[in-house]
Amino acid sequence: MKKNSGNAPGAETVIPREPVGRSRKVYVEGSIHSGVRVPFREIPIGETQPAMPGNDPGHALLVYDASGPYTDPAVAIDLEAGLQPLRARWIDERDDSELYVGREPVALDDGRKDGSTGAATPATPGRVRRAKTGRNLSQMHYARRGIITAEMEYVAIRENQKRAEIKQLLAEDPEREERLRGMPLGATIPDEITPEFVRDEIARGRAIIPANVNHPEVEPMIIGRNFLVKINANIGNSAVTSSIEEEVEKLVWAIRWGADTVMDLSTGQNIHTTREWILRNSPVPIGTVPIYQALEKVDGVVEALNWPVFRDTLIEQAEQGVDYFTIHAGVLLHHVPLTAKRVTGIVSRGGSIMARWCLAHHKQNFLYTHFEEICEIMKAYDVSFSLGDGLRPGSIADANDAAQFGELEALGDLTKIAWKHDIQTMIEGPGHVPMHMIKANMDKQLEVCGEAPFYTLGPLTTDIAPGYDHITSGIGAAMIGWFGTAMLCYVTPKEHLGLPNRDDVKTGVITYKIAAHAADLAKGHPGARRRDDALSQARFEFRWEDQFNLSLDPDTARAYHDETLPAQGAKVAHFCSMCGPKFCSMKISQELRDLAAAQGIDEEAAIKSGLDDRAKLFRESGAEIWSAAPDTQQDS
Amino acid sequence: MKKNSGNAPGAETVIPREPVGRSRKVYVEGSIHSGVRVPFREIPIGETQPAMPGNDPGHALLVYDASGPYTDPAVAIDLEAGLQPLRARWIDERDDSELYVGREPVALDDGRKDGSTGAATPATPGRVRRAKTGRNLSQMHYARRGIITAEMEYVAIRENQKRAEIKQLLAEDPEREERLRGMPLGATIPDEITPEFVRDEIARGRAIIPANVNHPEVEPMIIGRNFLVKINANIGNSAVTSSIEEEVEKLVWAIRWGADTVMDLSTGQNIHTTREWILRNSPVPIGTVPIYQALEKVDGVVEALNWPVFRDTLIEQAEQGVDYFTIHAGVLLHHVPLTAKRVTGIVSRGGSIMARWCLAHHKQNFLYTHFEEICEIMKAYDVSFSLGDGLRPGSIADANDAAQFGELEALGDLTKIAWKHDIQTMIEGPGHVPMHMIKANMDKQLEVCGEAPFYTLGPLTTDIAPGYDHITSGIGAAMIGWFGTAMLCYVTPKEHLGLPNRDDVKTGVITYKIAAHAADLAKGHPGARRRDDALSQARFEFRWEDQFNLSLDPDTARAYHDETLPAQGAKVAHFCSMCGPKFCSMKISQELRDLAAAQGIDEEAAIKSGLDDRAKLFRESGAEIWSAAPDTQQDS
Repeated sequence: MKKNSGNAPGAETVIPREPVGRSRKVYVEGSIHSGVRVPFREIPIGETQPAMPGNDPGHALLVYDASGPYTDPAVAIDLEAGLQPLRARWIDERDDSELYVGREPVALDDGRKDGSTGAATPATPGRVRRAKTGRNLSQMHYARRGIITAEMEYVAIRENQKRAEIKQLLAEDPEREERLRGMPLGATIPDEITPEFVRDEIARGRAIIPANVNHPEVEPMIIGRNFLVKINANIGNSAVTSSIEEEVEKLVWAIRWGADTVMDLSTGQNIHTTREWILRNSPVPIGTVPIYQALEKVDGVVEALNWPVFRDTLIEQAEQGVDYFTIHAGVLLHHVPLTAKRVTGIVSRGGSIMARWCLAHHKQNFLYTHFEEICEIMKAYDVSFSLGDGLRPGSIADANDAAQFGELEALGDLTKIAWKHDIQTMIEGPGHVPMHMIKANMDKQLEVCGEAPFYTLGPLTTDIAPGYDHITSGIGAAMIGWFGTAMLCYVTPKEHLGLPNRDDVKTGVITYKIAAHAADLAKGHPGARRRDDALSQARFEFRWEDQFNLSLDPDTARAYHDETLPAQGAKVAHFCSMCGPKFCSMKISQELRDLAAAQGIDEEAAIKSGLDDRAKLFRESGAEIWSAAPDTQQDS
Repeated sequence: MKKNSGNAPGAETVIPREPVGRSRKVYVEGSIHSGVRVPFREIPIGETQPAMPGNDPGHALLVYDASGPYTDPAVAIDLEAGLQPLRARWIDERDDSELYVGREPVALDDGRKDGSTGAATPATPGRVRRAKTGRNLSQMHYARRGIITAEMEYVAIRENQKRAEIKQLLAEDPEREERLRGMPLGATIPDEITPEFVRDEIARGRAIIPANVNHPEVEPMIIGRNFLVKINANIGNSAVTSSIEEEVEKLVWAIRWGADTVMDLSTGQNIHTTREWILRNSPVPIGTVPIYQALEKVDGVVEALNWPVFRDTLIEQAEQGVDYFTIHAGVLLHHVPLTAKRVTGIVSRGGSIMARWCLAHHKQNFLYTHFEEICEIMKAYDVSFSLGDGLRPGSIADANDAAQFGELEALGDLTKIAWKHDIQTMIEGPGHVPMHMIKANMDKQLEVCGEAPFYTLGPLTTDIAPGYDHITSGIGAAMIGWFGTAMLCYVTPKEHLGLPNRDDVKTGVITYKIAAHAADLAKGHPGARRRDDALSQARFEFRWEDQFNLSLDPDTARAYHDETLPAQGAKVAHFCSMCGPKFCSMKISQELRDLAAAQGIDEEAAIKSGLDDRAKLFRESGAEIWSAAPDTQQDS
């Protein structure tokens, strides 16, 4: 990447390098492909206060880590040089792609009409990579030919997370294991995620690994119903505010807290250059909505959009390394009138652009009529489809209506076409949906889209709380995640009101990590439950440091605790400020166990006697009011 | 109330008096009883920018208002004098209660052992009210004798909220009405809430109006599955922090944002006096956990607890006017060993206290053995039971276990006993429960507790996010609210970490208003949907001021908007900073309508042609790849 003196992320850019909480970056190596080295966050347990014997044999918990090399102190970070291209050798060794001189960047790529380059100089991609003639670089294409790629092995290790060990640990308490058994609702949660399982799911179309060959910096990740639920964070400047530096900072910040993919939704000026900075520094897949940039190229005049300018934009972004494209090819001419009686019309930017184009020309959506040509571009770079839901409901009133479901059916048709080209495909979903209408969305998507991964925005379960839409939507996201959605697009507190800042991005990401994790728990992922148990054990044993470190946001947990009890001594205290020392139920409960043990109380006998007791008091008394304490139980 | 120079809420206390948003306080009068004057918040619509014709005929929306006289500028507020006793005449006219000289307060009531009164002087209740000999003041008792009290009429108007008008409005779009039909899952959502419906629900035990005769300041509200879902906010000092002034401030603050009841969970010193201040200034029912104060009276020594000191505490608090008591009478001796293998033991303070007492004495819980004597006290003042779930799970690992469900069954037995005394009763529920195990809680509660109202704490759907437990629990609260829970006890961001401050209380309340409203929507309350529609219409029509005012938290919505676009002109702009002017989908979508109207596009014909179109493209092609754009749709 060319040095960008004018607008480069420089000294003022804040890129945090310390690990989250007190965790350590560890790597697990693969055995099939060389160079497969999968990062995890290892959270130490019991280092400040020892864990109770037997509770945490490993004394450390491995958790999924989306934060990339930024949290590995051993890796030098240079934003101008970008990250190491860890996939480069794998791609090269497959010997089905070639380097070529890419499309020449022009000033217009950055939205500049006068030929000036402004503050930002568009980076020159130089030699970029694409499929050799007649080849298809899609992971789905390899999968369907029975090939397990390095990317597939990578995600298998990443998802598996020592699952066998955890299963064994959980099996030690069969009553609990049975009681908490997940409810996967049709998803398959295997005891071990093998590379072959990954390959099969991708071949089947049920999962995707978004990984453009021109984005070799990406740490492969998988999106599919039978894997951990993922989350996406949107960043991007808009014409009104925000700068390149801020966007790279937001990227690193978003993945630090757990964003699995990031969409760059920039509009206005410098979008090519912003994207270049983001891609070169992103270890997570980057998605875009190419129609935004295409519209900039025609000066914002929707009617002036056409296939050549859109195609040019796809090539431009594919050469840069964008991993998935949102394509609103399901917004069809005949759907547009279906939105006329809606309370909030069309709320997807891409959807409203395409609807307007269709109506202005009275022609079918050109993304639909050129869909196969788009497939040809996708396969040359392995860009995945994220088939956009341009007609998603923008209010409770418009949920599950004819326009929305009509488009979904069209997306199902397009999925089949994409799959015939072996293009990895996921489907975008709503939006605003009241709780009782969420499941119908998932069921219909599974039915009409052949189990292609669903990727939803929330959904928001009510419209009445602007300023809190991370929460209104977090509720819907958790539910639809449980029902089978593979990736949840976050919503920040600023939704409907303005552009999110750094704090908003973090709040949005953490809220969605909660939703995704709650869904994983409900589906029965053993690794998910292990973390809850570890944190709860720490809580019960007053290991405050462990409790902070095991949480999604150790900084906030620690800060809240310290607000009322800042002294270091309070970190080992057997109470917190919430109830104070005398009323701490956890403390009393622990003392209780000692008491019970000393009295030699037997659990089964207790149940038996208890049932007898209740039976005596109530069952036999029939309709009589119970009126006297038994003899043996006098007043105290 | 005696003036309390030492610790009185004085000049430094911040009691906001302005209405929320730009709303007006309005009152709807009753027709059966005199003095029934039910407050609502009326939110103006279209005053800054006119609403589109036909969209908002009323140009104002009535919403439920828990904030009390504080938001009525016409009412003078004097914290030392307390609120007006609006129920006094109704109670008096029933002529079944009498005034008497109450229990003499002692220093120990405020936790003081040396006879000193410290900073706070215990208020002298003077003459208080109780049932005449042989009478029962419970609303359930009246209901069962066919009497519609003023309180019942009051809540009928409060719940009904011009429901017939709203139904009529919604019926104008039958397609939408049918599509969005709620899924009440066994709840009954009548077209009109009549006083007789209220009476019947109370008689049946399915709803309660917590309203102690010594709390005449309360604005009656109802808790039951067939009414709007309510929320409770906990306040209360602990031994570690917080003062009386802060607690009264928190009360007013919590109800300002929508708390329907407030529990005073104070421990430590000054709890009698703190409670007196809270009660005299509270228009919402106040709940307490009397065992906390009883424990203070025996110097925190659990083993020293006994029936006389507990009874004394019940009388003390009933005379002050507490509206509902959490009584942990379902924690039975034989349940205690069932908690031995739990990850987090017993996490309810009351539960751990009673379990310890049972074990230490090896006797049955004295709240259980004296349950009928407790009933006698409850009926003399109309205090409602909130049967405590002392054995609720404190972690995902402990959800739905034998201890929890064993206690729930015992609570079912106790409900039947309470009902035989005509005592209004609700049942407390968990806690920490993963999503897929939530419904089982509701189903079991309905089954064993005869449909007595369920009152749950969350539940939290994961343990791994301390600092965000308003969100982890908001997810579970929304779901269980939909499933049938009548009242949701809020959780603040400080849960598990420390005492909530003012901001935390607000965040907790708003989060739970979201959960309750999402549940009302899913159940199909017509009034609930009306607000979503009004806000969404305002959003689509760029009526920013209306959008702010219709939201749960107008201040935050406005502040977020102004962060990026502070100019007053932006409040009428047809875009926001999120997407900027060129990419605003709502703007494009509106222009689209004009275009469609101009073209005279017909909806039905469009659907027909669209189906034909898709059929041609895909259905007839069978397994073939679609490969050419139809002739009529050329490249642009």
